[in-house]
Amino acid sequence: MGSFRSRLLSLFSRKPVNPLMDAQITEVGTLPQLPEALENFQTEQARKRVVIEGVYPEIDGGRFPVKRTLGDKVKVEADIVADGHELIAADLLYRREQDASWRFARMMPLTNDRWRGEFQVLELGRYVYAIQAWVDRFRTWQWDLKKRVDAGQDVAVQFLVGAELIEDAITRAPDRQAAMLQEWAAILRGAGGLQEKFEAAQNPELAELMRQNPDRRFISTYDKNLTVVVDPVKARFSTWYEMFPRSCSSVPGRHGTFKDCEARLPYIAQMGFDVLYLPPIHPIGLTNRKGKNNAPKAGPDDVGSPWAIGSAAGGHKAVHPELGTLEDFRHLVERAKEHGIDVALDIAYQGSPDHPYVQEHPTWFRRRPDNTVQFAENPPKKYEDIYPFDFETEDWPKLWEEFKSIILFWIDQGVRLFRVDNPHTKPFHFWEWLIAGIKQDYPEVIFLSEAFTRPKVMYRLAKLGFTQSYTYFAWRNTKWELTQYFTELTQTEVREYFRPNLWPNTPDILTEYLQFGGRPAFMIRLVLAATLGANYGIYGPPFELGVNQPREPGSEEYLDSEKYEVKYWDLNRPESLKDFIARVNRIRRDNPALQSDWNLRFYPIDSEQLICYGKCTDDLSNIIVVVVNLDPHHAHGGWLTLPLKELGLDPAQPYQVHDLLGDGRFLWHGARNYVELDPHTLPAHIFRIRRRVRTERDFDYFM
Amino acid sequence: MGSFRSRLLSLFSRKPVNPLMDAQITEVGTLPQLPEALENFQTEQARKRVVIEGVYPEIDGGRFPVKRTLGDKVKVEADIVADGHELIAADLLYRREQDASWRFARMMPLTNDRWRGEFQVLELGRYVYAIQAWVDRFRTWQWDLKKRVDAGQDVAVQFLVGAELIEDAITRAPDRQAAMLQEWAAILRGAGGLQEKFEAAQNPELAELMRQNPDRRFISTYDKNLTVVVDPVKARFSTWYEMFPRSCSSVPGRHGTFKDCEARLPYIAQMGFDVLYLPPIHPIGLTNRKGKNNAPKAGPDDVGSPWAIGSAAGGHKAVHPELGTLEDFRHLVERAKEHGIDVALDIAYQGSPDHPYVQEHPTWFRRRPDNTVQFAENPPKKYEDIYPFDFETEDWPKLWEEFKSIILFWIDQGVRLFRVDNPHTKPFHFWEWLIAGIKQDYPEVIFLSEAFTRPKVMYRLAKLGFTQSYTYFAWRNTKWELTQYFTELTQTEVREYFRPNLWPNTPDILTEYLQFGGRPAFMIRLVLAATLGANYGIYGPPFELGVNQPREPGSEEYLDSEKYEVKYWDLNRPESLKDFIARVNRIRRDNPALQSDWNLRFYPIDSEQLICYGKCTDDLSNIIVVVVNLDPHHAHGGWLTLPLKELGLDPAQPYQVHDLLGDGRFLWHGARNYVELDPHTLPAHIFRIRRRVRTERDFDYFM
Repeated sequence: MGSFRSRLLSLFSRKPVNPLMDAQITEVGTLPQLPEALENFQTEQARKRVVIEGVYPEIDGGRFPVKRTLGDKVKVEADIVADGHELIAADLLYRREQDASWRFARMMPLTNDRWRGEFQVLELGRYVYAIQAWVDRFRTWQWDLKKRVDAGQDVAVQFLVGAELIEDAITRAPDRQAAMLQEWAAILRGAGGLQEKFEAAQNPELAELMRQNPDRRFISTYDKNLTVVVDPVKARFSTWYEMFPRSCSSVPGRHGTFKDCEARLPYIAQMGFDVLYLPPIHPIGLTNRKGKNNAPKAGPDDVGSPWAIGSAAGGHKAVHPELGTLEDFRHLVERAKEHGIDVALDIAYQGSPDHPYVQEHPTWFRRRPDNTVQFAENPPKKYEDIYPFDFETEDWPKLWEEFKSIILFWIDQGVRLFRVDNPHTKPFHFWEWLIAGIKQDYPEVIFLSEAFTRPKVMYRLAKLGFTQSYTYFAWRNTKWELTQYFTELTQTEVREYFRPNLWPNTPDILTEYLQFGGRPAFMIRLVLAATLGANYGIYGPPFELGVNQPREPGSEEYLDSEKYEVKYWDLNRPESLKDFIARVNRIRRDNPALQSDWNLRFYPIDSEQLICYGKCTDDLSNIIVVVVNLDPHHAHGGWLTLPLKELGLDPAQPYQVHDLLGDGRFLWHGARNYVELDPHTLPAHIFRIRRRVRTERDFDYFM
Repeated sequence: MGSFRSRLLSLFSRKPVNPLMDAQITEVGTLPQLPEALENFQTEQARKRVVIEGVYPEIDGGRFPVKRTLGDKVKVEADIVADGHELIAADLLYRREQDASWRFARMMPLTNDRWRGEFQVLELGRYVYAIQAWVDRFRTWQWDLKKRVDAGQDVAVQFLVGAELIEDAITRAPDRQAAMLQEWAAILRGAGGLQEKFEAAQNPELAELMRQNPDRRFISTYDKNLTVVVDPVKARFSTWYEMFPRSCSSVPGRHGTFKDCEARLPYIAQMGFDVLYLPPIHPIGLTNRKGKNNAPKAGPDDVGSPWAIGSAAGGHKAVHPELGTLEDFRHLVERAKEHGIDVALDIAYQGSPDHPYVQEHPTWFRRRPDNTVQFAENPPKKYEDIYPFDFETEDWPKLWEEFKSIILFWIDQGVRLFRVDNPHTKPFHFWEWLIAGIKQDYPEVIFLSEAFTRPKVMYRLAKLGFTQSYTYFAWRNTKWELTQYFTELTQTEVREYFRPNLWPNTPDILTEYLQFGGRPAFMIRLVLAATLGANYGIYGPPFELGVNQPREPGSEEYLDSEKYEVKYWDLNRPESLKDFIARVNRIRRDNPALQSDWNLRFYPIDSEQLICYGKCTDDLSNIIVVVVNLDPHHAHGGWLTLPLKELGLDPAQPYQVHDLLGDGRFLWHGARNYVELDPHTLPAHIFRIRRRVRTERDFDYFM
């Protein structure tokens, strides 16, 4: 297994050779360890005159890390002030958590005593950052000297003051720099004229030497070291496909296997998905097994819910015998890789009454006064086929370790992505411990939180370490709702720790919008998910096949849900959206602007049924503008207004909009343009904007 | 001196008997000490399922205290969530810093998992507060039971679950409560009918007993203890008068004395001031003494700037011989008290070249390469009559202690208010240490920060402990400026630590607005200061006499400034604003709504030259609406809109507006009403709004 594991590990580059080396970042050797907390009024502190506050990003006073992906820049801002009128210098310090020495980047003042610095993260795992600042006596001296000279004052003594500052720096400088500084000091002390001395005082080389050798005695250090978790790029940009393996058989009525899943891989890859997420693959309990459509009693042929985990055949570290063997599963994982697809498993910490744990660890379950084990319930709802674990058990350390060992077991089988079922019904501390522990050894692992609960609980789980999170997207349908929600997710502090993963449907969620909107509704929700979010997923084949029958009116459950039975899907039905999905996912892959969440901006469009938004790369080399008709029934038109300046477009020049979805190309001019969308043909445009770069004869070139 | 000091101390009630006892607050004895920091994943923590975050107020992660005055309520909010579906209970814990035991108040849920609790501060000094929360198993059981019963489920086992919870609480309850709980448990376990048991389960007395005896094992405690500094009421509401003692003589040309100041007290008291602030009263240096109008060389008769502190006659602990003796000063302090006036001193940590410190502590000053002491300068400006202290001296601990001893010296003379000169040119750490140290023994002391500098430095000084702070008010003249600035000061987190003290003029600040606006400008700025801010002050007699000649065009310095010479003021000049000021201050004293900053709200008025705002007491028993014409030259009229609902006014009933300034009474009806103000008669209204309480015959009564 060891060689297997190391082989798979190589798929997740843990020490990537990254081309994005930032020339601004320079090593300056080991600094003394930063103090853990501000010790007021001790000798060391009393004379530190600079204070650092209002640091961003900093989540809950530094209690939680922020999240980035490989190659990202971490921009850090702070308010930095000192008493008096002197100038300040500030450094942003950073290192990988396990490293002893700090690297540093200079911070630059913005306005109103706000400073900014940045560094780029090139390795997976945890980085820490801190800020140091100090009174820059030399630059203050330069500045004051200039003002004195301008005012015609006698500055003879001032050159001696400057020489003293330089001579002080010499005692701290490395030899080569010390020699250079000595020359500058000599000029200021020398017999030369005022002109020569004044020019020396203003020399940028001297200033740089002095900046590199500051008086560290009175340097102020921010009283917290803050943390960044660096995840693989897939944490930021991923395209998920959820599928029940048991419904993958090519023969109607036969229980699907891992081998059948392998045969399905080309289909999934052609649609452009790069994560294949499987609901639980473990043995399914018999006791109180649910029948079709969640019937309280199963018939003899009913297969039960995969979330009722555990039987005589094993628990969370076993595979359901009808799916195949563990070897089969590992083979599927490898084959998927060849298609550019990572397999994600479902982690549901709960057991069926037949789970081996029930016998082996009776204290892990709560008992009722009649000595029966407490089954899962949310009164008046009952889930008799599932036993929850009692996290308040005295035996919790063993419980926690066992649960961690489940993750490690599947990591050993090659899995690096885990979709976690209902994390909001297990203690917060557990998740923080579990995820931190796993990612310490496997920083490439991605945990997706499947919590549809109160907003603050969802955010807390993200802070605790979940790499991605399900959202309320499925129930946000109107322009106002979408704008509000995605502004909160992408333009507030939330984005520092909560990475949305948008799902228009799941096996539990068939929204009213999909039930009643017909095929256009599926197209609309797909385009929204795929372009509002860099991470999104669908539950297929029901999604691409447009399955939209609920169990009963008012329910969001599917009729004859796969959760309780084996299904056969005809993937080649003519109404399938598979080509449309493939096109959208191709657009996502080809356009880096769509691979990020933070760059989302909403643009005005004068129809309540039309929504318009854009995403650009930082350098504006890739500009995407999306327009969606939110009404699946009727055509709507409206005037949209683009922020030309923000997009780097010349208001006096035409620009090309290329509809990557419908393939039309239009020449637009100015900020306001008209768009009309008929949901029965194509309910959305995904425009790529191209600037005119040159004109030859009568032909315009755009890029 | 001891008896003198204790006599004065009695003026500042340090253990007040306060009538505002909140019946909601109940003592529950000593709790174990709260943990200082969250120790993750230790046995104690692992099973604590509730998390507490987003606590307000909490300044910079608890680094700084919030401020309140005696009798204030401290309202504390937090986001409190747990995993799962169970209900939560939460307590706000609080105690005086020096107390061992906590008191607590229950927190109540608002919406979206936000909780709020409050306590009232009845003693000066520091309080700490914290939050505890836990899963309320019993209330969850009650709630679930009700849902089960409503769904017609069999709940026999549930009564046993409830009995177990009660029996568990019995082990923790005091004897009397244990006996009562035993009875309830017996009912649930007994042979009675379901009806009896269900009613018992819902009984509020049982619920209350269970609430008082929670299972403390898994209680979550917020990981920080937060601090409140409780100041005397004068910190929130005070009216300052700044005056140069040397200009108080009743004989023109003669140097005024403390005795002359005593004679001036009735005049000051009649105007309604309760703080008399004196610029430095210490011996004035001779070396490099400034002449009139800041001339670089003083003539033989020039008296110098009081801020050039120190001569052969002494330093910061001495009084200028021409003003009288220390005994005279103490007498002035006592006489002022009899007029309801506290004397505030100016603390300027700087010395003249003749200050005894220069000889006694040469290391406290920085020397230039030519071995001269570095005088104060802000290039190209020079202040040769002043030596700044070098806070970076190796001897800083002695320097700090000496500076603290200066405050203690004047506290011994009966002074409890200090206006601190230019605190932004001394280290932040020093102020935090100094103020905390003084207030530990004298929590009634008020420090006013005279910092006119960068916004973040002013805020930082306030966080560090200054009780009140000068503001940019003097330079905020337009409606937009005033609205922006006072919204920031009173409706954001800033108000938790920064208490504005508004000055329309100071000896350093004669604004252009006052220079060119004539008498109406003085009235306008006075009304704004006195009603926008609960703390305000003027520099007199120049203010009430309307002195408005600058030293030169474009300067904010007074011509022939008192800073450099002895002045004689004719207080009975007919144009004096003293009666107007007295009236405004009387309105402030009579109307509690004007004694607070937090209740300021701006109301729309459709003229750019008119500003309208209101202040109400919490119970709406006192409602003040102010309208000011900001243009000192021309009359303006406009329609204002009052938020009737917010003010508790019935839109269908007339209400009385009583102009406390002009004494007119008007009946208004509805939200929109017209106001016109001519600056040459009266540039402002200060309306008291009275609701109609009853009508008898044809006569309306308002209160």
